[in-house]
Amino acid sequence: MKIAVDVMSGDNAPAEIIKGCIKALETCSAKLILVGQKPLIKQELQKYKYNKNMIEIVDCKEVITMEDSPVNAIRTKKDSSMVVGLNLVKNKEADGFVSAGNTGALLSGGTLLVGRIKGVQRPALPVLLPTKKGYTLLIDCGANMDSKASYLQQFAHIGTIYMQEFMDIKKPKVGLINVGVEEEKGNSLTKETFALLKEDKKIRFIGNIEAREISNGKADILVCDAFVGNVVLKFMEGFGSWIFSILKTEFKRSLKTKIAALIMKDGINNLKNKFYYSDKGGAPLLGIKGIVIKTHGNAKEAEICSTILQAESFAKNELIEKLTKNFQ
Amino acid sequence: MKIAVDVMSGDNAPAEIIKGCIKALETCSAKLILVGQKPLIKQELQKYKYNKNMIEIVDCKEVITMEDSPVNAIRTKKDSSMVVGLNLVKNKEADGFVSAGNTGALLSGGTLLVGRIKGVQRPALPVLLPTKKGYTLLIDCGANMDSKASYLQQFAHIGTIYMQEFMDIKKPKVGLINVGVEEEKGNSLTKETFALLKEDKKIRFIGNIEAREISNGKADILVCDAFVGNVVLKFMEGFGSWIFSILKTEFKRSLKTKIAALIMKDGINNLKNKFYYSDKGGAPLLGIKGIVIKTHGNAKEAEICSTILQAESFAKNELIEKLTKNFQ
Repeated sequence: MKIAVDVMSGDNAPAEIIKGCIKALETCSAKLILVGQKPLIKQELQKYKYNKNMIEIVDCKEVITMEDSPVNAIRTKKDSSMVVGLNLVKNKEADGFVSAGNTGALLSGGTLLVGRIKGVQRPALPVLLPTKKGYTLLIDCGANMDSKASYLQQFAHIGTIYMQEFMDIKKPKVGLINVGVEEEKGNSLTKETFALLKEDKKIRFIGNIEAREISNGKADILVCDAFVGNVVLKFMEGFGSWIFSILKTEFKRSLKTKIAALIMKDGINNLKNKFYYSDKGGAPLLGIKGIVIKTHGNAKEAEICSTILQAESFAKNELIEKLTKNFQ
Repeated sequence: MKIAVDVMSGDNAPAEIIKGCIKALETCSAKLILVGQKPLIKQELQKYKYNKNMIEIVDCKEVITMEDSPVNAIRTKKDSSMVVGLNLVKNKEADGFVSAGNTGALLSGGTLLVGRIKGVQRPALPVLLPTKKGYTLLIDCGANMDSKASYLQQFAHIGTIYMQEFMDIKKPKVGLINVGVEEEKGNSLTKETFALLKEDKKIRFIGNIEAREISNGKADILVCDAFVGNVVLKFMEGFGSWIFSILKTEFKRSLKTKIAALIMKDGINNLKNKFYYSDKGGAPLLGIKGIVIKTHGNAKEAEICSTILQAESFAKNELIEKLTKNFQ
């Protein structure tokens, strides 16, 4: 088994990406294919001791940047780490591909180069969202800005398989993000989607989930279009950071509050760890014929490592085969 | 000047609503028309000392509940406090109407009974959202679940007038909630809206605002469709409550952390007050030919009072006339 890693993309490339690869080798049994500029990679690898049989390098000259136009970059930068990595998956030379690069380019590339699973209308990009009870899969968070009800219904299936296989939930509860709990609430997309999910025997639909209830973790899977999912995800990050910054200010106000801050250090860290988790891997593009996972642009060692392990686990557990079977 | 108040609607009706009315009389110069079941109102009013010339009662028998279907309730419950109150505004017997009742019914009733301002395609329900810098007007948060770009453009105008008149911002900055800052990002609605706002000389458009940036307060007005606005607003409430509950748990963990909690009491209250503000009034339905304001269903004295004062201020400052002029 081989997992390819885009060593050139992301804010901390290549140093942290390679550090994450070395870390991953401590536990994973798959070989890693480091995709990027060979001289740079070789130089970076000299810092570490590792089993040389477990790392291959695939050389390429270009990098897709965050500023590149997604579809254009995939079409023109044929020798970029991202395109080369995606082609390794397409040609079955790698069992998975991890990248911290340009999300749009990875989504376009995943769909255009690796290709959709037969029967899947649109692949989705789900993210595990922290909640009171653990994690809820928010699907879709980035792939389809203008969705149809039938796409969302397929996301419910994809999410169900994902949560069964990787979060060990036998009958995961599917909720639909909406502005009210009643069936008739929402926009035309959610009303149509509700009607489809209600009749769908393959999933366990529990109805509409108001945004106020998202953090309560009532549903294991929350279905929404990518615009709404992306807004929820990013607003949570921004709003969360703001709350932490207010707390910081309040804790720094006086000598007394600084003492309180010392006492509360573990507590505040518990809180932070709930939101800034790096052990849950990245966001896989699900619905394509290979394993392609996006990690945060600012991912460091821990997150790169957990995403590689996630890719390995997907490959071992035959996620693509299971998804393919569902849509047959 | 007269402001009508729906005394029968909301979780805390009629006691807290009437308490809020009495409180408002301390500062406002408008007379209040209490709309609801007369015997109940008279009984409640006995608890207070107030200038009897400043309160009128308009009797009605029915109440629209939270469970009622909005349009249906407006059509059939003609003698409900909400319909009677809206008709007072329609017939110019009141200069404004405040209700903590069924949002959908108030929106339908406001549009159907009071009627749209000429030129306004759809009225909007904006809410002031707390940010690092103060407050940002999130428009729309509840009125139009399936919006068109031309509606959103009008919301930018309505929001601009609102922030100029009531938040004293001369040239309020308008942002469009989106999934990225670049013009080409988003769904078809935001792409079309961007094109309209960019060319609009009447407003100060500063471009797309990513959800991650909402809490930073870069824009004075954030334009979005009601589905997205409602999700942002409600998710903030739910997520905020969760963070507070985690903090509470952490502060209760041991004797030491309880002492830290005592030290941090003011700080935590500062944080809470940023999110649970009751002094900013309610959410006005803007774009109709009268002043109609929705307060939280669980509003108590302070919020009812500030919403009445808000209605009075709208009337004094001729908000409806200014909006009418914009759309001429």
